[in-house]
Amino acid sequence: MNPSYARLKARAARIATLGEASAMLGWDASAMMPPGGGAARAEQLATLAGLMHEMATAPEVADDLAAAQAEGEWDQANLALMRHDHIRATALPTALVEASSRASSACEKIWREARRHADFAQVRPALEDVVRLQRETAQALAAALGMAPYDAMMDGFQRGVTTAEIEPIFDAYEAFLADALPRALDIQAARGPALPLAGPFPADRQRAMAQAISARLGLDYSHARLDESAHPFCGGTPTDIRITTRYRESEVAQALMGVIHETGHALYERGLPGAWARQPVGYAAGMAAHESQSLIMEMQAARGDAFLGFLGRELQAAYGGNDAAHAPANLAKLWRHVERGCIRVEADELTYPAHVILRFRLERAMIEGRLEVADLPDAWAEGLSRLLGIAPPDDARGCLQDIHWYDGGFGYFPSYTLGAMAAAQLMRAARTATPGLDAALGQGDAAPLLGWLRVHVHSQGSRLGLQDLLRHATGKPLDPADFTAHLTARYLTA
Amino acid sequence: MNPSYARLKARAARIATLGEASAMLGWDASAMMPPGGGAARAEQLATLAGLMHEMATAPEVADDLAAAQAEGEWDQANLALMRHDHIRATALPTALVEASSRASSACEKIWREARRHADFAQVRPALEDVVRLQRETAQALAAALGMAPYDAMMDGFQRGVTTAEIEPIFDAYEAFLADALPRALDIQAARGPALPLAGPFPADRQRAMAQAISARLGLDYSHARLDESAHPFCGGTPTDIRITTRYRESEVAQALMGVIHETGHALYERGLPGAWARQPVGYAAGMAAHESQSLIMEMQAARGDAFLGFLGRELQAAYGGNDAAHAPANLAKLWRHVERGCIRVEADELTYPAHVILRFRLERAMIEGRLEVADLPDAWAEGLSRLLGIAPPDDARGCLQDIHWYDGGFGYFPSYTLGAMAAAQLMRAARTATPGLDAALGQGDAAPLLGWLRVHVHSQGSRLGLQDLLRHATGKPLDPADFTAHLTARYLTA
Repeated sequence: MNPSYARLKARAARIATLGEASAMLGWDASAMMPPGGGAARAEQLATLAGLMHEMATAPEVADDLAAAQAEGEWDQANLALMRHDHIRATALPTALVEASSRASSACEKIWREARRHADFAQVRPALEDVVRLQRETAQALAAALGMAPYDAMMDGFQRGVTTAEIEPIFDAYEAFLADALPRALDIQAARGPALPLAGPFPADRQRAMAQAISARLGLDYSHARLDESAHPFCGGTPTDIRITTRYRESEVAQALMGVIHETGHALYERGLPGAWARQPVGYAAGMAAHESQSLIMEMQAARGDAFLGFLGRELQAAYGGNDAAHAPANLAKLWRHVERGCIRVEADELTYPAHVILRFRLERAMIEGRLEVADLPDAWAEGLSRLLGIAPPDDARGCLQDIHWYDGGFGYFPSYTLGAMAAAQLMRAARTATPGLDAALGQGDAAPLLGWLRVHVHSQGSRLGLQDLLRHATGKPLDPADFTAHLTARYLTA
Repeated sequence: MNPSYARLKARAARIATLGEASAMLGWDASAMMPPGGGAARAEQLATLAGLMHEMATAPEVADDLAAAQAEGEWDQANLALMRHDHIRATALPTALVEASSRASSACEKIWREARRHADFAQVRPALEDVVRLQRETAQALAAALGMAPYDAMMDGFQRGVTTAEIEPIFDAYEAFLADALPRALDIQAARGPALPLAGPFPADRQRAMAQAISARLGLDYSHARLDESAHPFCGGTPTDIRITTRYRESEVAQALMGVIHETGHALYERGLPGAWARQPVGYAAGMAAHESQSLIMEMQAARGDAFLGFLGRELQAAYGGNDAAHAPANLAKLWRHVERGCIRVEADELTYPAHVILRFRLERAMIEGRLEVADLPDAWAEGLSRLLGIAPPDDARGCLQDIHWYDGGFGYFPSYTLGAMAAAQLMRAARTATPGLDAALGQGDAAPLLGWLRVHVHSQGSRLGLQDLLRHATGKPLDPADFTAHLTARYLTA
């Protein structure tokens, strides 16, 4: 092996190992840490992040990257990612990185208060600082990467898809939804209300069932844990996955569907190519790709008719209650309920993209200097009205609802809907290639689906960007028609 | 501040912060990690250890240490510790460190098998490798530090006490025990057998009581957690303490006394001087000092008559049962039972030092080249017979019982008994200085004891070595008479 490339691989592995340590400490902070540990933990994570950045940007890295040569598709992809990551890591002056990190930390704290009081004015100056520094960041990254500024921000979360590709897809979805949403609501109304599930649902029993179903979906708990945290997530490392959820004893679906969602993320991490562990090419292909894996398990598989049949039997066995409430058609009424709502994280599958499209348009306009922070609440209200025909009752349920911008996370939002669309596209391809996939899901068995995903998605690591990954797996780039066909079948068929 | 010293302080803080990350990952590995995470965790810990060693031994450290000047008692002690630690960190050739680490890892794995089969021959070659490399290590450290080889090994665990000081203390204890043990057994026999506690003791209730009593002893659970692990320990960092225990539903004392023991360790960490956090002088004063704090809580306070009165009431309220079984005199029979046994970790307070003295003599002889590994089983049997008048039925219950040597941990064993002796000495001083200390313990209230320890031990960090710490706190160096007086009062008074 070319010695420069060999040194780069060794360095990447060392940096990745520190990243694993950070990931575990991050999980602990959310799932285990007593509150008094927060200050020391922040210092530990900052020290690790600083060391990783120092290692990634040390002068000898540039020399090695210039001299490195790689042979074979995977090594070449790995080296290309090293070069790409190095451009991102060195594009920003240290002063800008530090100012941006400070501004985001400060703004996020103020945001928590402002949201509680539904008072946008309180956080406006801090958000103005964040946006100014995010614009500078986007400009600097854009120059270094040869991309448009907003594309450079998206690239930090999902490589291989551009605004030029997304914009027409999102515009088309807006048109689809304008027609589909009223029809879906009419059909839903005609079906009548759902029967409630009995309950209560003791947390212990919910936990046991969630873990059993997660294991049945393919997650090996000798390499994973299920715990609780305020905000569910999938963390840890590929051989030691940590997923979390939150239990309410009055309701069973939120925790269960949440665990199935995180299980999708976890299965992706578990299926990454072990031979490339701790190398850039061995990671997941990006946040949209990751979201496609959580949503294919939750939205495509678990909320589909076949799996609802299985779940109904499991729930009735665990908690009792009558047959009618546990029939798939009733569970579909409960768990595929469509509604015009203001809150993204509570939105159903059909309206969720509207929330994302709104945020995509607004954050892109902010990065490109076409929208000022002062005008955000009005722009939000206008956009929401246009997309869903409703108005937020206050800013807490409007432009203050999500942490992303206040924490400096610009460019992430599209990943949610790109993931949902990719999930539909991958599910269609998996179904076509795998007879019996739905029959197996009807027995709670995701092995045929998982087998297909292992080969066509998980084992690919980040060798390919999003569009190329979809081409590789399904024969075409992102095609929203598969998503709208899925929605049409599920919500627009009386 | 002298710029060299300022740089050294910044470096020490950074290294300490990585040490905190390691500590949390170590806790996780024992208390939380699924088995499949082991390989990645080993890599994470090795990478952090390597980075810490690189930082501690970087060429500029020697320059800064040469030029550094510190003012004031604490900074001077801090700088002296930096110099001492640097000598230890640089005394060993990298090849020796790596060979030793590999030999210990290999030997420890074989030892687990050999112990299971009570087959010393199986692990003998691996232990010979370990001992050979430990001898080399001791020689190199001794030359660098200007100490005797075995002292240099002890110094790695407990600074400020020498073999020349310990040996006569241990010899005197052997003489004391030869007289005391038969008398204690006679007195115990005359008192008759203990009434058993009813049980069962559901793990949930044990956990709740253990945490409540630990909190009552002064541990603030906004800075701590109590979890389960195969081998109980106290880990984490001073603002985020993690203690563990293990519950058996048939028996209540082991977990409860274990938690009280770990609470003593935890309270020490919590009481370290926050102003010196992440500096050498801000750490605990060594392993014997640490053991003194666990044993002052467990052996001196919790197993004392006053606290047993409190515990009896608590246990009866939680689990029911009759008054006689929960009377302090009966609990003392149960939990202060003396026995000639082969197993160190099951030993009572009176015979425990015999197990330590045996190991101290044998490991010192191995380090000094006076005892070969091949002769260890015989030397063990002879020594045990001389100290306790019993013989191990096999090597699993003889020289294979402890992990220490097989894992390369030579020089640690004396800490257990030095800690027990220091605990008695500190308790006597605390009692003298603090009227009402025992009356408070009778109500489950350790505040007077803890208040005294905070001032005289915890807040001192590692400013002083063991002997100087005891002089500072009690007016005299280690004095085993306080320990034998305690044992005489507890076990030799009919």
